[in-house]
Amino acid sequence: MDVATYMQDVGKRARSASRLMAQATTEQKNAALNAVANVIDSQRKIIIDANHQDLEQGKTNGLDPALLDRLALTPPRIDSMVEGIHHVAALDDPIGAVDDMRYLPSGIQLGKMRVPLGVIGIIYESRPNVTIDAAALCLKSGNATILRGGSESIHSNQAIAKCIQQGLNSSGVSADAVQVIATTDRAAVGQLITLSEYVDVIVPRGGKGLIERISREATIPVIKHLDGICHVYIDDGADLEKALSIAVNAKTHRYGVCNAMETLLVAESVAPTILPRLASAYAEHEVELRGCAKTQVIISAVKPATNEDWTTEYLAPILAIKVVADVSEAIEHINTFGSHHTDAIVTEDYQRSRQFLAEVDSSSVMVNASTRFADGFEYGLGAEIGISTDKIHARGPVGLEGLTSQKYVVFGNGHIRK
Amino acid sequence: MDVATYMQDVGKRARSASRLMAQATTEQKNAALNAVANVIDSQRKIIIDANHQDLEQGKTNGLDPALLDRLALTPPRIDSMVEGIHHVAALDDPIGAVDDMRYLPSGIQLGKMRVPLGVIGIIYESRPNVTIDAAALCLKSGNATILRGGSESIHSNQAIAKCIQQGLNSSGVSADAVQVIATTDRAAVGQLITLSEYVDVIVPRGGKGLIERISREATIPVIKHLDGICHVYIDDGADLEKALSIAVNAKTHRYGVCNAMETLLVAESVAPTILPRLASAYAEHEVELRGCAKTQVIISAVKPATNEDWTTEYLAPILAIKVVADVSEAIEHINTFGSHHTDAIVTEDYQRSRQFLAEVDSSSVMVNASTRFADGFEYGLGAEIGISTDKIHARGPVGLEGLTSQKYVVFGNGHIRK
Repeated sequence: MDVATYMQDVGKRARSASRLMAQATTEQKNAALNAVANVIDSQRKIIIDANHQDLEQGKTNGLDPALLDRLALTPPRIDSMVEGIHHVAALDDPIGAVDDMRYLPSGIQLGKMRVPLGVIGIIYESRPNVTIDAAALCLKSGNATILRGGSESIHSNQAIAKCIQQGLNSSGVSADAVQVIATTDRAAVGQLITLSEYVDVIVPRGGKGLIERISREATIPVIKHLDGICHVYIDDGADLEKALSIAVNAKTHRYGVCNAMETLLVAESVAPTILPRLASAYAEHEVELRGCAKTQVIISAVKPATNEDWTTEYLAPILAIKVVADVSEAIEHINTFGSHHTDAIVTEDYQRSRQFLAEVDSSSVMVNASTRFADGFEYGLGAEIGISTDKIHARGPVGLEGLTSQKYVVFGNGHIRK
Repeated sequence: MDVATYMQDVGKRARSASRLMAQATTEQKNAALNAVANVIDSQRKIIIDANHQDLEQGKTNGLDPALLDRLALTPPRIDSMVEGIHHVAALDDPIGAVDDMRYLPSGIQLGKMRVPLGVIGIIYESRPNVTIDAAALCLKSGNATILRGGSESIHSNQAIAKCIQQGLNSSGVSADAVQVIATTDRAAVGQLITLSEYVDVIVPRGGKGLIERISREATIPVIKHLDGICHVYIDDGADLEKALSIAVNAKTHRYGVCNAMETLLVAESVAPTILPRLASAYAEHEVELRGCAKTQVIISAVKPATNEDWTTEYLAPILAIKVVADVSEAIEHINTFGSHHTDAIVTEDYQRSRQFLAEVDSSSVMVNASTRFADGFEYGLGAEIGISTDKIHARGPVGLEGLTSQKYVVFGNGHIRK
């Protein structure tokens, strides 16, 4: 079977399964999730053996150590996969919830009922635990899923896929509800992102290059974010102790994450006071600083920043610093150079906090809190499939609700239009 | 200037204007809307003269009478344009509304703030009143708009555009917030639907051919519906008087609208009772009936339906009728042949009403009400820019809220991630 025929078949099966999934009860979905968790738990050896094959092959192919680390499935990582599935089973079922039910002047009663999107295609790189996280979220939200992992984790993903299918079969849910692409042929991705008849949305997870390519070529809507160029702006109305603690946390809590601060903006009048204290705090964490001309006058341990620094997601212990005149210049900088992900102001000034919240065009806008809070778990979504910086459909951390849509439901009693 | 350069310029201006619009107060937006309404009201002669040019040209080009009628701007139609703008000004401003504000375990306070989408491109055919309706809705929701009407209404649209610009200028809103494409070059549409840097969403309004072409070629999300193949299913648990009145209303209230019923499904056990009564009611309205084999046995004034009838949006006094075994067959038929627009069940049976609501995969699903209620005004949205049958973003009648997105807002007091 060629790739196109294979993918058509996968798509058709997913569409049929999605119809059944949409009607599955909460009890059926939870039973399926718990069954999958139990199979994973009991087949650890098979999964770890498959993962060893991938790791060996990765070493042979000269994969870099960071990638090999992400690829490795250790016993604690399998524990957290199993826990993760049970956790998703324990979340409230979003499907069937009805919002805004009310009577209208004509006498009809109108509400909005939450429904699954249908078929979700997920394309991701090395980490095989994504296979199970994504499958669990899609199952719980009543969707069918087509998963396409990286070729470097093909054996791990196939082993996990077998566990999923076995769990689904044992609980009476169609095994086609979760399909893991069995070929490493890159053409399969091109097919998946254009299967508009069978796939409702694509969620890419991985590097910027992958996501850009998918967004450009997909004929199906894509839920995505490309970059996390997050800012903290320290206003001249800031409480300096809060500013210090937030600016250090946002940069140094974790480096390789999309909600880490990459550029610090400081109001001119407080820069001479706060920047030297910040510089020594960052020095302790061995963060490299790159500053604008004004920053360089105030602190010495700083390299000159170029224009490129304002648009770079370092994902590393590097920070760009710019001194700005006021909140308006900060907002202008963020909306021009940022990535519409997450941006924070530190201020005690009422009016400037309102201006920042209203005018910064990002998926999360914060006052006096670290950008690191932009996360599905911290936001109480219970889980997260990704963070969307698009304005269409879901925006910000995407949990179960982002994988659903709504339909209008109307109750009448013989009502006709006059 | 070539079309590509022209459209790039239009896009850039729209993007700049959208930043200002996002920050406009409710008072500013309402003042701008009322100013536009006043200019339209006072420049009726100029608009009607321009419309005469289009009508003359249309006659010369042999436009069919129905199209000429839709193109004509009579004094009552201008009245309703003016009233429509004042009506939109009177609607609640959706922007800035914050939903779901709550404290989370970390201590941060989280909510979702409604924000504009940015720049909305609207592509439509003959009716020039769409120019003003669409512009008003986009203005009120804080968006900038690029409008592209049909070449047959170019003079009318340009005259209306001048009124809009004059109204905007007089009220201090950037005139670039509403731009009407000045060229009839078809290449402008191709440019508009691929200006992903400057345009956030495309709303096509017109025939199926137009919308299909735009969806296929756009690299920007499209809010659309292709077809309204709406169904009424008369269950064997139906109150037959309600069934009769709903089935007649859904078909005959208006023929050329997307929420009119196109296929009637009747449960086998009640078909012999209800179909003859329906047939005589439809005969009074001169509705042509096309039925399945079982229908043809029960009533005589019916042509045989072919498979094509189940997927045809007649927009005319024609009705397809199918006798089905039960609610499950009705749902299967609707999900297979329907267009996911609006479908209704008539029944007094509790369990079957729930099954129909849960399983029919359409943007509006109704019990004991006419499909004709699927409409932004009837749903209390105050206005409507179209009806979406997509599951991504807005679904069903799209009013002001469908032209907006949300961003997360976080309030802390120096909170950092532990």
